[in-house]
Amino acid sequence: MKLKMLQIFFLFSLLLFSSSHALDFCVADLKGPIGPSGYSCKIPAKVTVEDFVFSLGKAGNTSNIIKAAVTPAFAAQFPGVNGLGISMARLDLAPGGVIPMHTHPGASELLLVVQGSILAGFISSDNSVYLKTLKKGDIMVFPQGLLHFQINAKGKTAIAFPSFSSPDPGLQILDFALFANNLPSVIVEKTTFLDDATVKALKAVLGGTG
Amino acid sequence: MKLKMLQIFFLFSLLLFSSSHALDFCVADLKGPIGPSGYSCKIPAKVTVEDFVFSLGKAGNTSNIIKAAVTPAFAAQFPGVNGLGISMARLDLAPGGVIPMHTHPGASELLLVVQGSILAGFISSDNSVYLKTLKKGDIMVFPQGLLHFQINAKGKTAIAFPSFSSPDPGLQILDFALFANNLPSVIVEKTTFLDDATVKALKAVLGGTG
Amino acid sequence: MKLKMLQIFFLFSLLLFSSSHALDFCVADLKGPIGPSGYSCKIPAKVTVEDFVFSLGKAGNTSNIIKAAVTPAFAAQFPGVNGLGISMARLDLAPGGVIPMHTHPGASELLLVVQGSILAGFISSDNSVYLKTLKKGDIMVFPQGLLHFQINAKGKTAIAFPSFSSPDPGLQILDFALFANNLPSVIVEKTTFLDDATVKALKAVLGGTG
Amino acid sequence: MKLKMLQIFFLFSLLLFSSSHALDFCVADLKGPIGPSGYSCKIPAKVTVEDFVFSLGKAGNTSNIIKAAVTPAFAAQFPGVNGLGISMARLDLAPGGVIPMHTHPGASELLLVVQGSILAGFISSDNSVYLKTLKKGDIMVFPQGLLHFQINAKGKTAIAFPSFSSPDPGLQILDFALFANNLPSVIVEKTTFLDDATVKALKAVLGGTG
Amino acid sequence: MKLKMLQIFFLFSLLLFSSSHALDFCVADLKGPIGPSGYSCKIPAKVTVEDFVFSLGKAGNTSNIIKAAVTPAFAAQFPGVNGLGISMARLDLAPGGVIPMHTHPGASELLLVVQGSILAGFISSDNSVYLKTLKKGDIMVFPQGLLHFQINAKGKTAIAFPSFSSPDPGLQILDFALFANNLPSVIVEKTTFLDDATVKALKAVLGGTG
Amino acid sequence: MKLKMLQIFFLFSLLLFSSSHALDFCVADLKGPIGPSGYSCKIPAKVTVEDFVFSLGKAGNTSNIIKAAVTPAFAAQFPGVNGLGISMARLDLAPGGVIPMHTHPGASELLLVVQGSILAGFISSDNSVYLKTLKKGDIMVFPQGLLHFQINAKGKTAIAFPSFSSPDPGLQILDFALFANNLPSVIVEKTTFLDDATVKALKAVLGGTG
Repeated sequence: MKLKMLQIFFLFSLLLFSSSHALDFCVADLKGPIGPSGYSCKIPAKVTVEDFVFSLGKAGNTSNIIKAAVTPAFAAQFPGVNGLGISMARLDLAPGGVIPMHTHPGASELLLVVQGSILAGFISSDNSVYLKTLKKGDIMVFPQGLLHFQINAKGKTAIAFPSFSSPDPGLQILDFALFANNLPSVIVEKTTFLDDATVKALKAVLGGTG
Repeated sequence: MKLKMLQIFFLFSLLLFSSSHALDFCVADLKGPIGPSGYSCKIPAKVTVEDFVFSLGKAGNTSNIIKAAVTPAFAAQFPGVNGLGISMARLDLAPGGVIPMHTHPGASELLLVVQGSILAGFISSDNSVYLKTLKKGDIMVFPQGLLHFQINAKGKTAIAFPSFSSPDPGLQILDFALFANNLPSVIVEKTTFLDDATVKALKAVLGGTG
Repeated sequence: MKLKMLQIFFLFSLLLFSSSHALDFCVADLKGPIGPSGYSCKIPAKVTVEDFVFSLGKAGNTSNIIKAAVTPAFAAQFPGVNGLGISMARLDLAPGGVIPMHTHPGASELLLVVQGSILAGFISSDNSVYLKTLKKGDIMVFPQGLLHFQINAKGKTAIAFPSFSSPDPGLQILDFALFANNLPSVIVEKTTFLDDATVKALKAVLGGTG
Repeated sequence: MKLKMLQIFFLFSLLLFSSSHALDFCVADLKGPIGPSGYSCKIPAKVTVEDFVFSLGKAGNTSNIIKAAVTPAFAAQFPGVNGLGISMARLDLAPGGVIPMHTHPGASELLLVVQGSILAGFISSDNSVYLKTLKKGDIMVFPQGLLHFQINAKGKTAIAFPSFSSPDPGLQILDFALFANNLPSVIVEKTTFLDDATVKALKAVLGGTG
Repeated sequence: MKLKMLQIFFLFSLLLFSSSHALDFCVADLKGPIGPSGYSCKIPAKVTVEDFVFSLGKAGNTSNIIKAAVTPAFAAQFPGVNGLGISMARLDLAPGGVIPMHTHPGASELLLVVQGSILAGFISSDNSVYLKTLKKGDIMVFPQGLLHFQINAKGKTAIAFPSFSSPDPGLQILDFALFANNLPSVIVEKTTFLDDATVKALKAVLGGTG
Repeated sequence: MKLKMLQIFFLFSLLLFSSSHALDFCVADLKGPIGPSGYSCKIPAKVTVEDFVFSLGKAGNTSNIIKAAVTPAFAAQFPGVNGLGISMARLDLAPGGVIPMHTHPGASELLLVVQGSILAGFISSDNSVYLKTLKKGDIMVFPQGLLHFQINAKGKTAIAFPSFSSPDPGLQILDFALFANNLPSVIVEKTTFLDDATVKALKAVLGGTG
């Protein structure tokens, strides 16, 4: 019987070999061409378990004015998620820390708080505010493309892990979009109703020109 | 031969009737249940050509401080586009008119200028600015979820028609999201780096509280 | 404070740099490989605002027998729309002009009339006819894959801009599919019930053989 | 040990019950509301194996002028495929039988010949013709939305089973779209270049008016 | 100026009201009809921040033979994720605890370890094994539909949070699929090569019949 | 008139040429880069009708212990289905033949029986069994990602053709995933509740180690 069984083995091996496992996963080949659906796939023979594992175990550096750090595990950092419709990041919020108002243009976010307490919120298209103080073990979902933020709600460091519904969710931070580039002040003012002094001050601080 | 032909007619009629044309289109029944993919479909027997036609021929009222008007033809106004992955709107920009900084959380936009001249721009996730003065006949694409704006670039009224890659693209206007609701000023300040006076002034003007 | 602010700048710059903006957009590299979801993406560093802007300002040449012209702004002509689920074209219809019966195999169409008057229609799977004379400012949606057409309804030139729910909607013109190639006449006749004389006459005119 | 095992059973039963199996499948409730993604789902408790099985074992009636029959197993006939991205049909082609020129607006087709021989073809957007005589065991794919047809290639009855990449692929038969409704003859003529006599003759035969 | 500003407010309020925020999110109405894309949407007026927040803060009961617990936050438990392409769960693994071999038919999984150490693995279509001992802060991705498992790798309780690329990922536990129902033993044996004694023993333990 | 007609021909030829037919289809270039949405597209000029046709007319070799054969026509074997959301295979089941318990991680299956009789079944996430003896002409749908199997139900050879809702559906055969690789026996035992003797015996037969 064993010999016959081996026949199955060879039969199916043949079948399985010929139907490459391209569809099971598509680990990003960061040097290959990129298309609308993501990075090219690494050759299966070169894929190892390390492609599917990433460490978010180390705190980001929060010695900065927002007292916060974001460590992404998107497809560009974590090639294993390419094409799989999911990714993650780590947020570290020192006391007083803030993740400023931002959007993810291409994904919804599901935030898990694992330490400390975080005041989180988002604003919908009809300008309603959804605001909640989250504690350890709480999760909160931020629908795709809407403005949202996270603020450390207590005197101790908070840690949270946002998951995203895309391997490449994008991140547009409002203040950097408005003030950290060469978008002319006059245009910022006309399109935000902010006054010239405010715009120029923030541009100066955030490295913007114009 | 005619009789035999009628046989085909009956044969196929039967076939075509039994495979309802649910897939051809799904005109929104605005009173039915809504799901993640859009509105429920109107009964085909009640669908008429009027469901597929909408007028954007009338200028919006620009007698307001932004000297601009947006007239949407999304699924809620124009039920024929429900489920079809597309919609449109009309922009009227009087001299000095501005469509303030905003995003569409669920769609890319393709803007067509049909009268006048418009200075349009968007900012990408890496804070690059893409800015262009558009004239009649120009089209410009604004990728999904990114901040963008339109400003009348000349002394005469401009008219433009944005198309969207969704029947329900959403519209989040930055100033309204920040200042036209009850999001507490202290939170706006922490998450935008704006000062208290600026935030309170804009909240007062735009009807916000807190 | 400014120094500390610069720390944010560096922190976030690092973050934003490492999470390339591949997801914001994917401007077509027309010389790269093509996949089922579209063209490869141009390297972000080489992308400029010109990639996102296209002119449909010039009338097409209507000195032909259909007295009409179609000017496409699909991904192949307008690389900025690649991957964004939208594109556009321009129709010019001289007096008597006609866009013949056709389908877009991969997209719904939303037509905007900006000059003149157009008689437009589509036929659904159950053979119902949806017919309407459109005037300036009217929009009409043609659901994906269905036969439709546009006819100049008045004595003056009409201009319209169709938007599509795909960057590459395709265009199959019925008469060209049937008569402008080497599909044998006998097959055309069997599958359309047209007689041999009609088929051969149209093949002769449209350059078909067989 | 058995008692402890039963504990797992209860634990997981609870889990599995609370996460209803809505995602496994969505058998069509043909009387419920329809949305852009398909029919509403039947209550799982009422679903039986019969919902997932359908018979295409009986030949369609080919006693008609096209000497052919199409028997669909789309979501409307076969509720089990609703939401699953696939469906099937049966083609019977008596000697001389033809499935006339048609499109499926919302699906690609993969045809399997199980008896006889069929001459099949499709025409692409650039008017290229892809034509092949298929024998028993051959499969041929017709890309989404393109015009195609099937003709019995031999003197005996042929049977084939087309699969579709949608539970509701649609079916637009060219001659019925043009001649079996009230689309005015003058419009058919203008948009197809067919002459008045041809159009009126076919309208008469196929039951069209106007 | 304030009065004029109020004009904007009214203008835009009108606009925003008419374009309902159906697209921003679709909180599940668990009592409404379900379709292939998910649950019906709760009326926006009844949506509160509580719909977007869920607690996974409490350990599941691991007093069972697998010494493990799974607490889901899928759309059925956490209506806020409906339609947003993401969900989460909590795994508690007491010392010796195991999440048995299983698949998620409709989603990829991204597992985050927050306490203890977990030996996790998946098997691809070509039967390759991807196996890794994860420590606190590690994440591992399990591509859609593939068999995978998690085992507590140390003597202390482990906690992990899997995210999923669907609001309703499904969960098919191998042993329950084979042995906890009325699938006849003879069929289990023929399709798995397991012997009759093994099958009957496991059926007895897991509550199966036949 | 003919000359003017030729003008159309040239006009449209130009148009059609410039909007390449990339969207009509994307025949797999098996040597080009692969991305999450499939293989790169062959250059249209090199595409012939043979790319769209494949033969499943020859019986697979059933001289093996399962007395069965699977012949795939997935994108890797049949490049024409790449990007089209559909594929097919052929099953041959000699008397006593079995297609063992398996899943397709990325597709639903629609099985057509063309000869003999097959006992087929699948198990849902809530462990319900859906079991049916299919005869010639019957079709049965197996929802995406769920365990299922096929057994020859009679004394004669059975033939069936499964269609899939993906050009690359994948195939994970349970016994091969568990026993035909280097997954350590102790892990198989912990995650399946099978005993050591059973696991080692099957590993020996199926070529597994560890």
